[in-house]
Amino acid sequence: MTRSVYGDTFALWRAGCGQPWHDYTHHAFVEGLRDGTLPRASFLHYLVQDYVFLVHFARAWSLGVVKAETLDEMKVCAGTVDALVNHEMALHVKTCAAEGIEEATLFAAVEAFENLAYTRYVMDAGLQGDFLDLMASLAPCCFGYGEIGTRLAQSAASETPYRDWIDTYGDAEYQGVMQTVGQMMDEAIGRRLGPDPTASARWPSLQGRFTTATRLEVAFWDMGLRGA
Amino acid sequence: MTRSVYGDTFALWRAGCGQPWHDYTHHAFVEGLRDGTLPRASFLHYLVQDYVFLVHFARAWSLGVVKAETLDEMKVCAGTVDALVNHEMALHVKTCAAEGIEEATLFAAVEAFENLAYTRYVMDAGLQGDFLDLMASLAPCCFGYGEIGTRLAQSAASETPYRDWIDTYGDAEYQGVMQTVGQMMDEAIGRRLGPDPTASARWPSLQGRFTTATRLEVAFWDMGLRGA
Amino acid sequence: MTRSVYGDTFALWRAGCGQPWHDYTHHAFVEGLRDGTLPRASFLHYLVQDYVFLVHFARAWSLGVVKAETLDEMKVCAGTVDALVNHEMALHVKTCAAEGIEEATLFAAVEAFENLAYTRYVMDAGLQGDFLDLMASLAPCCFGYGEIGTRLAQSAASETPYRDWIDTYGDAEYQGVMQTVGQMMDEAIGRRLGPDPTASARWPSLQGRFTTATRLEVAFWDMGLRGA
Amino acid sequence: MTRSVYGDTFALWRAGCGQPWHDYTHHAFVEGLRDGTLPRASFLHYLVQDYVFLVHFARAWSLGVVKAETLDEMKVCAGTVDALVNHEMALHVKTCAAEGIEEATLFAAVEAFENLAYTRYVMDAGLQGDFLDLMASLAPCCFGYGEIGTRLAQSAASETPYRDWIDTYGDAEYQGVMQTVGQMMDEAIGRRLGPDPTASARWPSLQGRFTTATRLEVAFWDMGLRGA
Repeated sequence: MTRSVYGDTFALWRAGCGQPWHDYTHHAFVEGLRDGTLPRASFLHYLVQDYVFLVHFARAWSLGVVKAETLDEMKVCAGTVDALVNHEMALHVKTCAAEGIEEATLFAAVEAFENLAYTRYVMDAGLQGDFLDLMASLAPCCFGYGEIGTRLAQSAASETPYRDWIDTYGDAEYQGVMQTVGQMMDEAIGRRLGPDPTASARWPSLQGRFTTATRLEVAFWDMGLRGA
Repeated sequence: MTRSVYGDTFALWRAGCGQPWHDYTHHAFVEGLRDGTLPRASFLHYLVQDYVFLVHFARAWSLGVVKAETLDEMKVCAGTVDALVNHEMALHVKTCAAEGIEEATLFAAVEAFENLAYTRYVMDAGLQGDFLDLMASLAPCCFGYGEIGTRLAQSAASETPYRDWIDTYGDAEYQGVMQTVGQMMDEAIGRRLGPDPTASARWPSLQGRFTTATRLEVAFWDMGLRGA
Repeated sequence: MTRSVYGDTFALWRAGCGQPWHDYTHHAFVEGLRDGTLPRASFLHYLVQDYVFLVHFARAWSLGVVKAETLDEMKVCAGTVDALVNHEMALHVKTCAAEGIEEATLFAAVEAFENLAYTRYVMDAGLQGDFLDLMASLAPCCFGYGEIGTRLAQSAASETPYRDWIDTYGDAEYQGVMQTVGQMMDEAIGRRLGPDPTASARWPSLQGRFTTATRLEVAFWDMGLRGA
Repeated sequence: MTRSVYGDTFALWRAGCGQPWHDYTHHAFVEGLRDGTLPRASFLHYLVQDYVFLVHFARAWSLGVVKAETLDEMKVCAGTVDALVNHEMALHVKTCAAEGIEEATLFAAVEAFENLAYTRYVMDAGLQGDFLDLMASLAPCCFGYGEIGTRLAQSAASETPYRDWIDTYGDAEYQGVMQTVGQMMDEAIGRRLGPDPTASARWPSLQGRFTTATRLEVAFWDMGLRGA
């Protein structure tokens, strides 16, 4: 198992996920961002859907506050809601505004099925299970975008028009939030599953949550590539 | 607006939905059940997915008990959970058993994205909104299958191999449960929105729930037709 | 640890609870039911509050269906909702009717704070935690009434006017449902915490849920004894 | 109906509540804060319980983000979570630290029944109902403390040792947050109930939520006065 700057739990889940993790983080959509060949229409379609995705992602992290059992868990989840609403979504609003798409239009966009499937799966994981079920479902988006941002910040073509997107996820602010999130997840796992979490009876179902959410990330990129 | 045996609220939602309602209740998958031309593999793929769908549908009706505000709402929702678990799912178990598929296999089936999207959308409607948001999301499946069952019971080809499926939804038991559900929904609407519900400020968003769930029914048939 | 007909998990929780369990199952209210000295006004006050309690208890068991992860968990939870609505609440309705109190009056009764505290604590345990958090919060009522019913069926004064109440919880039907519930809880624990649940990192917080709910049972009897 | 700086909806709910609103905002505990006669032990007992209350209040406002239907509703709810965690709770932490009580002790305090009853009632209002049910249950605490803070800032005895508490709720920051919250609630009501909300079929049940939460505020002061 390869270590990760986002913590031990994520490293275990990533290793347990296997091929879908690679399919997600090295998807053709991602490579198109990296070398700049991604069609603008695909990017904009993705961005509108991703805005709606982030609305529900902020709801999911707020559900994390509802389900938290320590003050630290509450603060990290609340801080992530703030980072989503005031940092990550700002990229979408700014980029879309430059294309003449207003925020109200974004908020009211009809969700693609892949978007519905992903976001509502995460919400229901939180309703059906506990804090860990929710975290396992949230982890692929958080850390996958972190890994993609880091890799593309180092390797993207200098002329790619998607530099703003890459910077949003590759910059120190996003990376710092994700390291805090990863550390909180490690502690949340230790608190509930003990020092050897993979030996816990619950581990397979948590791994299942992570892998399902990763497959839903792949489907989300597919949807973006396909366009409206 | 055409009246319906399932009540006034459903009749209003169906009229407000328009084309997607026809696309759903007259889908090629349905016509294949009616004339018997639906490939067996498509039917079995659908049946396995529909079993998992019903598991989550039973969860959603149970969420209805959680959100109910009258004893009658509680009893109808609890009765529907019972009808799902002990009547409707029995068809799936029996039919699949005849094909050598055990119930544990059904329960553990990997969900198609269309399935995830639909079921989790309904669950989240219940978490995000109130009893009416949940009912508006549950209505298309309940009453659409009721309409399809009634129509196919009268018009299906005598040699269709899908008679058991048709009977499940066309028989007096399912129809009776759905009439009770429809009446309860009418009362639930009256209780919260008053005697002129379409004039209520909430009506457009409830109609939106109904229409989204109907679109997800169309996608579910598409998935069935496509096969595994 | 003394074994229990309701299973190993309950026996562990009961042992871990200690004095509050005795305070609950041997409360002055219970002794008043047994020897018949409980004032009628206290009993009726309790019965009206307990009816509202059972409404929320049915909601909580329905939340159990929402949170279940196996078909057996779903069926047992749904069956318990049915037992509550169609068996246990019938006692309340019948007894109150004989006193001139209609069911609509019961449903609309203003809840005592002890009632609010208990029922909403259980609901929130289900929202905040997972299936086990909910089960640990539901267990004291289920099995405590089972123990009280069994003991009073054997030891109650022949002339106690509370024979109907005693029979409701001492009879084979209630006892059978509770044994099924206890077995399901044992399996639910094994499935999530493994073969040695008390060694699990989560055990203390589950024990805390059980003990808090037991303390709330004591407060509920206090409220009954105090009267309106 | 007297207008309020916190908006029209609150003014309606306050008028509809009547005597319990006065009992809450002019409780002996409040008068003891104002003239400085409140025993220190009562204040500290209250403060420890109120810290735990705020933990669950932050969970409830996060549930507001989960249930919100507009971006503004999301932002106001998320902002209130931040105000609670980073402003209001800081008073408790600082005051308790001066008395030698650490924050971890606060977080782990055994909740009084009145505390359990109130906080879990609010959480369940959010689970059972929609955004408005949750807001109606949150409003008495928000605006009642606002009114008390304003009144005591103007009328408290100069020598009261509870000046810090009074300032927390009387200062411009808290008042500003509450005016934003009140405006958001007005818009949330208008969006769902139309321009004449008291004519809506739902109004009585929303008023019932507000009044129940107000009664729970009275019980909370009683608990504080009673001491540990």
